[in-house]
Amino acid sequence: MTAHDDLMNHWRRIEALSAASGLLAWDQEVTMPRAGAPQRAEELGALAEVIHRERTDPRVADWLDGATAEARDDVARAQLRHIRRQHERAARLPGQLAAEIARVTSRAQGIWAAAREADDVAAFLPVLGDVVRLKRAEAAALAGDGSPYDALLEDFEPETTGDQIAALFAGMRPRLTRLRDAILGSDRNIPTLAGRFAEDAQMALGQEVARAFGFDFAAGRLDVSVHPFTSGSGRDVRITTRIDPEDPLGNLYAVIHETGHAAYEQAIDPAYALTPLGKGVSMGVHESQSRLYENQLGRSRGFAAWLFDRMTARFGDIGVADAAGFFAAVNRVHPGFIRTEADEVQYNLHIMLRFDLERALIAGDLAVGDLEAAWNDRFAADFGYAVDRPRNGMLQDVHWSVGLFGYFPTYALGNVYAACLMERLRRDIPELDASLAAGDPSPATAWLHRAVQCHGGLYPPREMIARAAGGTPTAAPLLRYLEAKFGALYDVTGALA
Amino acid sequence: MTAHDDLMNHWRRIEALSAASGLLAWDQEVTMPRAGAPQRAEELGALAEVIHRERTDPRVADWLDGATAEARDDVARAQLRHIRRQHERAARLPGQLAAEIARVTSRAQGIWAAAREADDVAAFLPVLGDVVRLKRAEAAALAGDGSPYDALLEDFEPETTGDQIAALFAGMRPRLTRLRDAILGSDRNIPTLAGRFAEDAQMALGQEVARAFGFDFAAGRLDVSVHPFTSGSGRDVRITTRIDPEDPLGNLYAVIHETGHAAYEQAIDPAYALTPLGKGVSMGVHESQSRLYENQLGRSRGFAAWLFDRMTARFGDIGVADAAGFFAAVNRVHPGFIRTEADEVQYNLHIMLRFDLERALIAGDLAVGDLEAAWNDRFAADFGYAVDRPRNGMLQDVHWSVGLFGYFPTYALGNVYAACLMERLRRDIPELDASLAAGDPSPATAWLHRAVQCHGGLYPPREMIARAAGGTPTAAPLLRYLEAKFGALYDVTGALA
Repeated sequence: MTAHDDLMNHWRRIEALSAASGLLAWDQEVTMPRAGAPQRAEELGALAEVIHRERTDPRVADWLDGATAEARDDVARAQLRHIRRQHERAARLPGQLAAEIARVTSRAQGIWAAAREADDVAAFLPVLGDVVRLKRAEAAALAGDGSPYDALLEDFEPETTGDQIAALFAGMRPRLTRLRDAILGSDRNIPTLAGRFAEDAQMALGQEVARAFGFDFAAGRLDVSVHPFTSGSGRDVRITTRIDPEDPLGNLYAVIHETGHAAYEQAIDPAYALTPLGKGVSMGVHESQSRLYENQLGRSRGFAAWLFDRMTARFGDIGVADAAGFFAAVNRVHPGFIRTEADEVQYNLHIMLRFDLERALIAGDLAVGDLEAAWNDRFAADFGYAVDRPRNGMLQDVHWSVGLFGYFPTYALGNVYAACLMERLRRDIPELDASLAAGDPSPATAWLHRAVQCHGGLYPPREMIARAAGGTPTAAPLLRYLEAKFGALYDVTGALA
Repeated sequence: MTAHDDLMNHWRRIEALSAASGLLAWDQEVTMPRAGAPQRAEELGALAEVIHRERTDPRVADWLDGATAEARDDVARAQLRHIRRQHERAARLPGQLAAEIARVTSRAQGIWAAAREADDVAAFLPVLGDVVRLKRAEAAALAGDGSPYDALLEDFEPETTGDQIAALFAGMRPRLTRLRDAILGSDRNIPTLAGRFAEDAQMALGQEVARAFGFDFAAGRLDVSVHPFTSGSGRDVRITTRIDPEDPLGNLYAVIHETGHAAYEQAIDPAYALTPLGKGVSMGVHESQSRLYENQLGRSRGFAAWLFDRMTARFGDIGVADAAGFFAAVNRVHPGFIRTEADEVQYNLHIMLRFDLERALIAGDLAVGDLEAAWNDRFAADFGYAVDRPRNGMLQDVHWSVGLFGYFPTYALGNVYAACLMERLRRDIPELDASLAAGDPSPATAWLHRAVQCHGGLYPPREMIARAAGGTPTAAPLLRYLEAKFGALYDVTGALA
């Protein structure tokens, strides 16, 4: 056995243990009886401790040196790059701290869910304080002399800094608010859906739509959870959605969004299974797939026309008269509190709010006790109206409860990347609109499969997008796309000139 | 920290990892997409390897010595007895072999399920050969100079030998066959159920019956799988059933059976959670609970009367006229191939067949290639008619595919133990029949909770039964119970005198 073989066998076990941990987390959200939460926290903590010990095994450094000398191709070098980063990162993080974070966040998730249900910020603050304290300790241990926030961000978006993101956001913000103001000032009247949409019929349509976007049910599942998410890799990828009998679009677009995430995981070269390359390379690239599926494809005029037919076939009268009205309805720009329900124009403003607040929390510039006020002030300033209740404000997202700091900005990066990919995809596939109108996104999804998804973790995030899109990613394509689509829909193109 | 604290903290992590492994196994049976099987095998293999390493940690021997010197009470001594046995057992088993068994049995389970579906013995034999080869290697490593089969048996029924079981079975066999022959020679005509029994109504009634027997749905789940089973401990105990629209009793009595298993796990003193005492002490004692719930309680005249009312309320005409007919129907002694569908009289004959065959397989006296012929010959000899297809013969049970050798005899031990407990329980609770007729088994389940279930692994199996029943367990109470119940039902008491 070579050093490379030893290392890869060792890492294969780590990936298998991580996959087991992912399954436990999925189960906690989807199937676990509530009383199981305390023991589940122990299980996740024990797994985190074991994984941490494996990653920091003293033999890894020697194997890495040997394997680096042996490495002959890009795949081997990429594997080693990932392993070295994980090994060095783990070595900087005390095992005790990793286990404590796993336990506390597992517990915090249940407390968050109950607090959100009860609109009870005070019930959530103590455990959120624990999570922030532990994540600040983790960030400090990881960062050394660098930026603590960037050290957390690296977990989700390697080779990207908070300052880069802040600059990107600063360039997007004026054009987005200008567009939003123009739209909200327009007198174009966009219809909304009306009716009752039975749960089982929604689930059946969700399955149909997931299949249309290529979800492989032999290698995955679709279930219901509080907060839609995707879990797993390779031949066992699970997506969830949420069902509201009065809002069928929430379910449908959650399904399309998560199917985009799942497509990435299901499409990765099987040769990378249970290796560091066998997963999406970053959350930004992941989100570029899910947002492209959801918005550029799922909310396109063509696909909306097909979906209108499927909706009326299942539900009868849905309160809009025709495909054009349905296209407008699924793209309606509307006031609202909830990020996951936000339209494409305002979505990134929700992200910028969270990005600034979580950077301040990790920097120690904002106390957990002041978070609700900070959220509500910023929301009123950015959106023009006040948060009415905590579940519509700082209790709406699961992320912070489970310790995901540095995750939110990757949603907006995903939007930026998606638009870069889409400009190129449109040039390569002139017949795209016709196939979308036939309910067949497969020309687009096959392009993404080849250009992005099959590569897994092979290329660093920005390089991945640059290779696929044919140029360094910038915010320009996203802004062009939004101004063109919504300028036309709301007849405000003149105001944007 | 004392040696005892160090040891218990270490073992708490092992129990948490074992619980995680149990959840992965549950998921594989209930929720996993089929394509996920190969990766799941890797995950279970990795966990088995880690657990094995933790159990054989060289510090454990020192901690055990220190803790033994410190031990002040029965609980501490029982914990140490379990830990020492697991530690010494693991030390005799090479880690590589443990991991290989975990991987191969995980794979074999899927192959078995497909082979059973297709009645294809040849498709199953190669992987069964691998499993038997690995289990024989395990048995040899564990046994040292002792009996290899007994070494496997110890995993399920500590402090019991194959020879003891063989002697017990030899004493039961003539009385059981005499009873069976008398019944099958009787001209008493027992009705069977007729009708269609919708799946959702069956699931709803299953939930109602599980609740009647005290299943706590806040700390557990009821799902569907190919082979009903119970998984988990403490506050997350999951049972499964199978649904056949033409056979509602299969589902109902599977639910009651698994609820018996679940009651044991849910009732264990919470102070024992994530310790060796926090699980049922043996499969035989476990089965004593499930069989007592299923048969002595669930198939009693009183409970059958209540269940008859619930059945007719849900399904209308079920093909039997009254409660007496329903009681007879649920206790009908009938020819059949399937162990899990066997009546109380013949059930133990199914076990004796498997016990003898698996002992021969492990001893090397029977080759895997000869197993089907051996099964079919023995079945014809014991039951008087030929196996018609493999799924009704050697492919019917999951056990051997997942490496469970030494498990089958514990079912019959459970029947023996259940009857011992029931004789005492009847003396202690004179009003039992009246409460059962009201659909309320709680006087019996509360007695079992106090006398057996809450103790978890505190007492060795035979001691546990002796303490609860008030005397050393023998087969006599089971034989008395069967001859009384079925002698009366079939009017053959005279033939048994």
